[in-house]
Amino acid sequence: MHTLELTKPDGRSMTLYARQPLPQGLQAPSPFADPLRGGAHLRWHPVRGEWVTYAAYRQDRTFLPPPEYNPLAPMTDPANPTEVPTGPWDIAVFENRFPSLGGLQVPPPDLIVPTAPAQGRCEVVVFTQDRTASLGALPLDHMELLLQVWGDRTRRIGGEPQIEYVLPFENRGAEVGVTLHHPHGQIYAYPVVPPVPARIQQVATEHYAKHGRALLEMHIEAERRDGARMLYEGPHAAAFVPVCARYPYEVWIAPVRAVEGFAQLDDAVRADLARALKTVLLKYDGLWQRPFPYLMAWYQAPTDGQPHPESHLHAQLWPPYRTRDRLKYLAGTELAAGFFAMDALPEEKARELQQVEVTV
Amino acid sequence: MHTLELTKPDGRSMTLYARQPLPQGLQAPSPFADPLRGGAHLRWHPVRGEWVTYAAYRQDRTFLPPPEYNPLAPMTDPANPTEVPTGPWDIAVFENRFPSLGGLQVPPPDLIVPTAPAQGRCEVVVFTQDRTASLGALPLDHMELLLQVWGDRTRRIGGEPQIEYVLPFENRGAEVGVTLHHPHGQIYAYPVVPPVPARIQQVATEHYAKHGRALLEMHIEAERRDGARMLYEGPHAAAFVPVCARYPYEVWIAPVRAVEGFAQLDDAVRADLARALKTVLLKYDGLWQRPFPYLMAWYQAPTDGQPHPESHLHAQLWPPYRTRDRLKYLAGTELAAGFFAMDALPEEKARELQQVEVTV
Repeated sequence: MHTLELTKPDGRSMTLYARQPLPQGLQAPSPFADPLRGGAHLRWHPVRGEWVTYAAYRQDRTFLPPPEYNPLAPMTDPANPTEVPTGPWDIAVFENRFPSLGGLQVPPPDLIVPTAPAQGRCEVVVFTQDRTASLGALPLDHMELLLQVWGDRTRRIGGEPQIEYVLPFENRGAEVGVTLHHPHGQIYAYPVVPPVPARIQQVATEHYAKHGRALLEMHIEAERRDGARMLYEGPHAAAFVPVCARYPYEVWIAPVRAVEGFAQLDDAVRADLARALKTVLLKYDGLWQRPFPYLMAWYQAPTDGQPHPESHLHAQLWPPYRTRDRLKYLAGTELAAGFFAMDALPEEKARELQQVEVTV
Repeated sequence: MHTLELTKPDGRSMTLYARQPLPQGLQAPSPFADPLRGGAHLRWHPVRGEWVTYAAYRQDRTFLPPPEYNPLAPMTDPANPTEVPTGPWDIAVFENRFPSLGGLQVPPPDLIVPTAPAQGRCEVVVFTQDRTASLGALPLDHMELLLQVWGDRTRRIGGEPQIEYVLPFENRGAEVGVTLHHPHGQIYAYPVVPPVPARIQQVATEHYAKHGRALLEMHIEAERRDGARMLYEGPHAAAFVPVCARYPYEVWIAPVRAVEGFAQLDDAVRADLARALKTVLLKYDGLWQRPFPYLMAWYQAPTDGQPHPESHLHAQLWPPYRTRDRLKYLAGTELAAGFFAMDALPEEKARELQQVEVTV
């Protein structure tokens, strides 16, 4: 993995990653000439016992791009600067211009609930220079590089003392609100362990104390023994529709043995994990012969400097479709109660995905 | 409040509620002639530590209504039976034909995670006979009746030993997945306290142990003292955009003093709470002069037979719009991390709603 550190004209940092050595002299562009303004703050939600972040300055975005403008494509016209330079890079990471966490730190307002500066970091990860590609269509060694990049970002950002949790994710498709179709993901780094990872950690910690083994490692063993919902079984990685899927086409992807996070993956496991990921994404796109939208989140151990033998790096993919033409809306019971109701059995949905033949 | 208990031809129960006495001799219709089939089961989600319910038989719904068919309108044509009879009722409650919880109890499958029968109950609440009305447009005494109905349902269903939590909610609008526009809501009764209410209870219980007062009661006092986000202040009830709103137009509605649930409301508080609710819903519809979609959930105390001085009945309303023409999609940080990011300040959104003049 080759890297190049750059700074954008507006002060944001950027890192280019490549499989081949990168030339010197690349400049990081920015569509924004003016310096960073404003900042976000946190407010405590007393009833749910969690933080919410407010970045009202995001509304001030005066930038109105022309319809065909793609800010994630390599910059070719100096009159229309984008976020990434031309050059032989494979993956580009840069700070979001309008982050919900991090960015300029401003004093939080004085309110009737506790408030705090919105420490953290929001990064954009451009998966490829090819705007017509998709994550699943990238060559395996390019996907392996992405897993390395996620590890590098987690190590660097997670190493900062104020960062407690690093979450790489991809929102894909207009159905999940994405307006920019150039293949890309995001990394959110939080100053606390957020509610969902905190719950996962709590459950995993209790399990580890009782069984001396990581919960997900044991669950993956059981899924493999059962076999009914498996989509990929390699020497080091597995992918399956979990027996407890909350979305009809939900899939989990993980190393077979517990690993805390991307930074702890060895080459063999990383390569097999990339193959598992590619297999799932190709099956998704093959199912209805069209791009398949999803939310993909990678859960890792908290970056609090403590050992986390209970943690087990894995992705959960949540596609919004129930059937080819019907979306699953999250409504009363899902959002208000947190109690998911499914019309489809995971075994049936797994069978549909198992039958999609793919060449990885 | 006048009630009439009926049984549908397929065995489902129905209760009619009215402000005036109901005549005898009303029959409960059903669009379904065949007896109930199938049932749901629960599976344990080991990673999140929560239950998920599976009702695959819901897919078997062979019932294909004509396009103009409204199953919640009073039945006028015996050849096209609906779910509710003609007659002078104001509100009708009946068991969902395809419930995610309750209904026919079937043995749960044997799987690699714990499973259980899906005990519980799913009810449909028809707010009015008028298909062109909306909840906010109903007369105040009709809305008071609805609050009484929610209390009656909570008392009856919550009194069953297997029911731990009763959640009345309304999903309104195509934007939140609603296809049936006759004014109606739902009641889900759970065999456990579901994750979100469980978290609310945990936080409230810790607060009560420390302060000897209900958390929300103290928060409402602080909101009223602050005043910046208030939408309604009556002698017994209040409505406001909470300082910690997670949705741009989020509103909370509650009695000023802590009350465990609808069943514990006295007449004066119930009347003021109905007025607060009507005020908010009229402001919503007035904001852009069109029906305003939302998810409205009413949190109450668990129905475990214990006293809950820490609980404080309240509604949280979550509209899906950020602005007149832009939806707020829940994606990576909201769904995967449970960490909400807001582009708008609650103070600004409250001001928009404060400026909508309504006649209650």
